[in-house]
Amino acid sequence: MIGRDLLGIEDLDREDIERILDTAEHMREIGRRDVKKVPTLRGRTIINLFFESSTRTRASFEIAGKRLSADVINFSPSSSSLKKAESILDTARTMDAMDPDAVVVRHGTAGVPRRIADILDVPVINAGDGAHEHPTQALLDCFTVQQVKGRIDGLTVTIVGDILHSRVARSNIYAFRKLGAEVRIAAPPPMIPVRVEETFGVKAFTSIREALEGADVVMALRIQNERLEGAFFPSVREYSSTFGIDRAKLNYAKEDVIVMHPGPINRGVELAHDLADHKPSVILDQVRNGVAVRMAVLYLYAGRRSSGPGASE
Amino acid sequence: MIGRDLLGIEDLDREDIERILDTAEHMREIGRRDVKKVPTLRGRTIINLFFESSTRTRASFEIAGKRLSADVINFSPSSSSLKKAESILDTARTMDAMDPDAVVVRHGTAGVPRRIADILDVPVINAGDGAHEHPTQALLDCFTVQQVKGRIDGLTVTIVGDILHSRVARSNIYAFRKLGAEVRIAAPPPMIPVRVEETFGVKAFTSIREALEGADVVMALRIQNERLEGAFFPSVREYSSTFGIDRAKLNYAKEDVIVMHPGPINRGVELAHDLADHKPSVILDQVRNGVAVRMAVLYLYAGRRSSGPGASE
Amino acid sequence: MIGRDLLGIEDLDREDIERILDTAEHMREIGRRDVKKVPTLRGRTIINLFFESSTRTRASFEIAGKRLSADVINFSPSSSSLKKAESILDTARTMDAMDPDAVVVRHGTAGVPRRIADILDVPVINAGDGAHEHPTQALLDCFTVQQVKGRIDGLTVTIVGDILHSRVARSNIYAFRKLGAEVRIAAPPPMIPVRVEETFGVKAFTSIREALEGADVVMALRIQNERLEGAFFPSVREYSSTFGIDRAKLNYAKEDVIVMHPGPINRGVELAHDLADHKPSVILDQVRNGVAVRMAVLYLYAGRRSSGPGASE
Repeated sequence: MIGRDLLGIEDLDREDIERILDTAEHMREIGRRDVKKVPTLRGRTIINLFFESSTRTRASFEIAGKRLSADVINFSPSSSSLKKAESILDTARTMDAMDPDAVVVRHGTAGVPRRIADILDVPVINAGDGAHEHPTQALLDCFTVQQVKGRIDGLTVTIVGDILHSRVARSNIYAFRKLGAEVRIAAPPPMIPVRVEETFGVKAFTSIREALEGADVVMALRIQNERLEGAFFPSVREYSSTFGIDRAKLNYAKEDVIVMHPGPINRGVELAHDLADHKPSVILDQVRNGVAVRMAVLYLYAGRRSSGPGASE
Repeated sequence: MIGRDLLGIEDLDREDIERILDTAEHMREIGRRDVKKVPTLRGRTIINLFFESSTRTRASFEIAGKRLSADVINFSPSSSSLKKAESILDTARTMDAMDPDAVVVRHGTAGVPRRIADILDVPVINAGDGAHEHPTQALLDCFTVQQVKGRIDGLTVTIVGDILHSRVARSNIYAFRKLGAEVRIAAPPPMIPVRVEETFGVKAFTSIREALEGADVVMALRIQNERLEGAFFPSVREYSSTFGIDRAKLNYAKEDVIVMHPGPINRGVELAHDLADHKPSVILDQVRNGVAVRMAVLYLYAGRRSSGPGASE
Repeated sequence: MIGRDLLGIEDLDREDIERILDTAEHMREIGRRDVKKVPTLRGRTIINLFFESSTRTRASFEIAGKRLSADVINFSPSSSSLKKAESILDTARTMDAMDPDAVVVRHGTAGVPRRIADILDVPVINAGDGAHEHPTQALLDCFTVQQVKGRIDGLTVTIVGDILHSRVARSNIYAFRKLGAEVRIAAPPPMIPVRVEETFGVKAFTSIREALEGADVVMALRIQNERLEGAFFPSVREYSSTFGIDRAKLNYAKEDVIVMHPGPINRGVELAHDLADHKPSVILDQVRNGVAVRMAVLYLYAGRRSSGPGASE
């Protein structure tokens, strides 16, 4: 049995992840129909509680909820008015009192979804919290690899970029390792967490060539320009020439390597222009699969309250 | 027969209020089901026309409408571009021309919903206008008291805070008095309207102790910090120690007193920290009941156009 | 057969336009019912991708989509973060990957909807692009004239205002001419495009009197105040006295002339105060018909993908 909340991949075991991916397989088929809608969550309410703006992830959850016939309510409190932790929690309590079946939370600070889950009875889905986790992103990434490669066990996945500040990297490290892949990370030294190999079970590289050797999957992370201008790295240009993924660097990897990116892309920085749109990149497959994976997550987490005596309409 | 618009509690008689509360009783039951949806307003369009931002009230109306199967359209014109009264009315006329079944209006200026109702044929629901009225808040407050106490007639309700600038206070004074309660207000003198006892039929107190003596219900209002820093009152700290509700002050009230607040709370100012989350406060019940009461209001006001010959699908 | 995208009236032939108007006739009837909803687009997803804010047009498309039972997703990327063309196109690709059945695009720059249509497989509906076209506005204007006058062929339509910068004027010139009307434009010389008569087949006037003589329809355009303050025209007051439409000037036109405006109106500038609200103006009919015309457009463009083998629910 899967837990009540989806706060991070760290909490899931392999069976949980596989169950979500299997469910997403069914959901993906719905998205290919003309009538892309099933009555599964009719009469259920999903609240998208986004303290940090993110139109892409919000839209993906909204479409996922609506394709399951749920009522989806978007709620984006201005973060300026909610600086205090107690105001954030009061907002969550207020939303909870409107009897949703799940609350999808995004916040710029790590740990907020967990603190909200601690005080609510309703399932909480983490849609990204600070530099902590972004579990549905990792699930859609695993789902995409499985679609293309047919398996994850035994593959080599190289994640390139600002690992230290990336919730996408953290969630993907947990997810791919639990599913049996070897995970490598490649970044300039200031962007690598201390003791990362011991803590996360990955291999860390500062040479992109070594990191890519034999890789089945290369995942480039989005670089925050403001970080590059600070102490972390000399310049965008230097980052791009050393760690930006282009066809020349892909020659170090396996012949059938695929390239992933969580988006939005800084073209010409993390990824060469032509790679963003063409094979072997699978970036738009990631987006498409995101809807299917979020349908699976909403189905499994928001759809499962037992039907009480007054449940039928 | 209830009127066409819900602009303020002042316009309602006791029977109208009781009819709304009785209907809310049925709606509340729907919110407890797994399938929290009835087809009552299917094919009806509700426009949330919010000139003043209010995510909580907007979300409550949106959820209420969707649980009745209505199509809900959120429309939040930037108030900066709509300073002139004629632009506000033109916006309302434009919305009206899209044939909604009700328009829910919030505006920072008292009287705007009435001016809009004057020019539209469609029912207008006031979701808060300046310091004038916030009728659905008062209805959900009465509903909550009735749920907890079993009656309103004969109770003593003490409203504490900035009465002068509070639409919540005004609407609640009308509502509780029409339902037979004794209403008291307690505030520093600059926050009490002139001639309030004659005009509104309440008893005004500047001593919180006297105001609470024998009270069944204490309603703390949200304090706007910008008011406290001005001429109205010396300081937040002084306000809090004199009028902030805590367990010590509650000893003056009846043993089974309940504590209400329209939210969002300034913890430690109007309400002691521990009171916000624990009995005898019923703040989250107010939020939950808000959805049921707004379902009742939308049902009664937006659902009643007679079915013409082409009405069936 | 109508094309895949609706990017501008320039691309349509007379039969296309008439087919949309005929379909809108059926849709209009639905808006008059109590249950204003048909299951036509159930399970289809419409994305409103508005880079330029426009609550009126967005609300009209949203209501149109919901009355056809489509799921409508509003997506308004902050234009500040999307200055580069490649970011705009990446956003469109991302939306496309979520498998919508149509994407409705508004952007402040001419040509963006076409560039998006070039890279997407899904139908793109232009909801206004810079000074280029606003096809659904022209369609609803033609529909309104046809409703009131019973025909368009042979009528004289005078468009008054800043023709040079108006997408509404461009689309209407194409539409009314294709349907057989004579189109005149009237404006101060700096607001008239060069070689407009040869290029667009209209008659250009700088005398409002001559332009209105014998007109069946007068369409006043919204004046952007910032343009008036620049080199284009001396002052709002002078514009208003020379080109603002009032009852005195209407005496030059036919006795049964009607007055149109795309909204929002600058009252007392393009239109005299009393004309905005009373006959012979049909401005609110335009808004009402806008929903019907957009229902027709969504039906014809978003509803037509052939049902594959997995299409039934």
